Amino acid sequence: MNEAGDIEREDSLTRVEAFSDGVLAIIITIMVLELKTPIQESLSALWALWPIFIAYVLSYAYVAIYWVNHHRLLGHARVVTSGLLWSNMLLLFTLSLIPFSTAYLGEHHFGREATLLYLVTMIAPALAYILLQSRVAATGAKTVASRRYHKASHRKGLAAAAIYALGIPLTLLSPWLGVACAALVAGFWMLPWSAMDRLFLDRIPPAGS
Amino acid sequence: MNEAGDIEREDSLTRVEAFSDGVLAIIITIMVLELKTPIQESLSALWALWPIFIAYVLSYAYVAIYWVNHHRLLGHARVVTSGLLWSNMLLLFTLSLIPFSTAYLGEHHFGREATLLYLVTMIAPALAYILLQSRVAATGAKTVASRRYHKASHRKGLAAAAIYALGIPLTLLSPWLGVACAALVAGFWMLPWSAMDRLFLDRIPPAGS
Amino acid sequence: MNEAGDIEREDSLTRVEAFSDGVLAIIITIMVLELKTPIQESLSALWALWPIFIAYVLSYAYVAIYWVNHHRLLGHARVVTSGLLWSNMLLLFTLSLIPFSTAYLGEHHFGREATLLYLVTMIAPALAYILLQSRVAATGAKTVASRRYHKASHRKGLAAAAIYALGIPLTLLSPWLGVACAALVAGFWMLPWSAMDRLFLDRIPPAGS
Amino acid sequence: MNEAGDIEREDSLTRVEAFSDGVLAIIITIMVLELKTPIQESLSALWALWPIFIAYVLSYAYVAIYWVNHHRLLGHARVVTSGLLWSNMLLLFTLSLIPFSTAYLGEHHFGREATLLYLVTMIAPALAYILLQSRVAATGAKTVASRRYHKASHRKGLAAAAIYALGIPLTLLSPWLGVACAALVAGFWMLPWSAMDRLFLDRIPPAGS
Repeated sequence: MNEAGDIEREDSLTRVEAFSDGVLAIIITIMVLELKTPIQESLSALWALWPIFIAYVLSYAYVAIYWVNHHRLLGHARVVTSGLLWSNMLLLFTLSLIPFSTAYLGEHHFGREATLLYLVTMIAPALAYILLQSRVAATGAKTVASRRYHKASHRKGLAAAAIYALGIPLTLLSPWLGVACAALVAGFWMLPWSAMDRLFLDRIPPAGS
Repeated sequence: MNEAGDIEREDSLTRVEAFSDGVLAIIITIMVLELKTPIQESLSALWALWPIFIAYVLSYAYVAIYWVNHHRLLGHARVVTSGLLWSNMLLLFTLSLIPFSTAYLGEHHFGREATLLYLVTMIAPALAYILLQSRVAATGAKTVASRRYHKASHRKGLAAAAIYALGIPLTLLSPWLGVACAALVAGFWMLPWSAMDRLFLDRIPPAGS
Repeated sequence: MNEAGDIEREDSLTRVEAFSDGVLAIIITIMVLELKTPIQESLSALWALWPIFIAYVLSYAYVAIYWVNHHRLLGHARVVTSGLLWSNMLLLFTLSLIPFSTAYLGEHHFGREATLLYLVTMIAPALAYILLQSRVAATGAKTVASRRYHKASHRKGLAAAAIYALGIPLTLLSPWLGVACAALVAGFWMLPWSAMDRLFLDRIPPAGS
Repeated sequence: MNEAGDIEREDSLTRVEAFSDGVLAIIITIMVLELKTPIQESLSALWALWPIFIAYVLSYAYVAIYWVNHHRLLGHARVVTSGLLWSNMLLLFTLSLIPFSTAYLGEHHFGREATLLYLVTMIAPALAYILLQSRVAATGAKTVASRRYHKASHRKGLAAAAIYALGIPLTLLSPWLGVACAALVAGFWMLPWSAMDRLFLDRIPPAGS
């Protein structure tokens, strides 16, 4: 540990990842508890659960995307600083509200207020992630590849936050437009990395050149 | 990280496993929450819980088998690709529906519709697992042993999916035939590995020959 | 992986431990969900929760003891065999029933039937643990210290199971005698290791002699 | 393992951390389950959840602080002793009561009895942490930096416990003074490490001098 209390990377980062994995695994799994078994045994009773199921699928994809990105981002951290620890805690906090807003969205059948709340709980982690990115970048990008990664990833983060923010006025027109914004962001994050690079990083020459 | 965004095996795979372990541990444990304590204190009130208990035992075995297979399968991955990450997420998603269908099966005493839903939630992870297998195999089998493993394991996966699919028409005759199909698959997956090899891999010469 | 499908110790054992840790952490934590907040805000409403609290304390200690023992036991495994994996899964299954019997014990104020059920859910993991011990020992004790460990630990396991079994007829006299048996076992497992050795291993000369 | 049953540091400590991470991740996440979705879809129904939300924020910060401190503390352990294991289990037990007292605090709108209970569940982990610190220090501080860390950290622990204890009589005047005490401790723990050092360790010369 140096004067500023930063801890060398080694097992310290492993433990930050392990804790984050634990929290994300629980968040992703408690959402399924909202799928309450119908008292009646009939296909129509099961069918009536569709809005809760769709909300679960959307939020599962959303949290899974965060896990994949988080996994890549932390691989670029050189040391574990206080700033990194606390912005990671903030990200996990914002993500922990997803099961609540997902349940609300499903139970109220994608109504206007429920969709607005859902978009707010999508913007919050997007902003916390941008903060975490800057804290990871501040630990000192090791290589050209790291610098390229931070640049592309920062732009994607801003684009995602902007689309969610755009979803808010669109929800006032129709909640389905708001849900479409959330699904759009999920869609573009799931594209393979190399396709993303072409979209967000077209002017930076590749690492080897 | 190479151009395609694939991450070297090292701690990356460890973290995929850790996250999967977390999700599987939670799935396996939240199923027990369905065993709600009876309000009355009597042996007959406890006895009335038997269908929920049997459904729990079956699903516990089912998820435990997935954990064991997943554990073996990922040991053969050479790198962590996007395809591997997302097909793993898909597998975990399909498994996360098991607590729901298990609760439904137990509460409706292995009725017809509940058994059908249960078989559907067994087929979904079986298909996702076949996809994950192909993504792991695509990372490049390292050794002859790996190639044999993928071959045997792929055949077993198809056999399991086929037996579940067969369970669906059988459930229309009697739900117990459907449950028997699920139990049959669990049974053959729990056999020791060497016995499985003889069943599914009889024509491929062993690694040393 | 050898012909019999056994996996070398390295990360394989780490993952068995990680999964077991996940399941044990969840078991220990979901028990606290039974402590439901009283609707009224008053000290007497809080006080009425005492049987649920005491049941929680007892079960927490019980699961914590299993974690500590499990942690020590797996340190002696040389390879991860199918037998080890499945007996570990069986142990986790039996432990997963503890939150149910704990809730029942607390809600029915340590009544006769609830105490009997509780003791049964204590005997089941004790037997599964003895099975797991034999599977770990079968992987081949590495050192004299391992052999001594297995011997002492096997005797303790049998003693614990015997005390729980004794608790069953005693519960018919008074449930508190049954609870006392459970507490007694918890007490002797928490003694420091060296004191335990003197109790259970008095005739085997120490490793260095 | 030596005569006293202590286990060498290596993977043993890793597993203690992994288990603690699992328990802390679950504690932090089950608190969010108290945020139950309102039956009505309206902003006023959401707004009525504010006390539960504030209680969640406070407790999230509290558990996150414990995680960060725990993470640093265990980095100074030289071996895993029985004393370390059991005082760690005691700390996790006391922390596991936080979701209960948080729910009570939120549901009863920061009332007097609820605030008292909340402060009690804050003092308990503070005391358990002091015990764990002494057990970690007893494994033998490796370096001058370790000795400085233990000293500063011990003083901070005592200061925190004292402020919580002071909160109890203040709550009798007004519950908000009690909540302020809890928030004050959270605030000073979140300060960067170097600022803390100046506060709690001013007279010990830095490691290099």
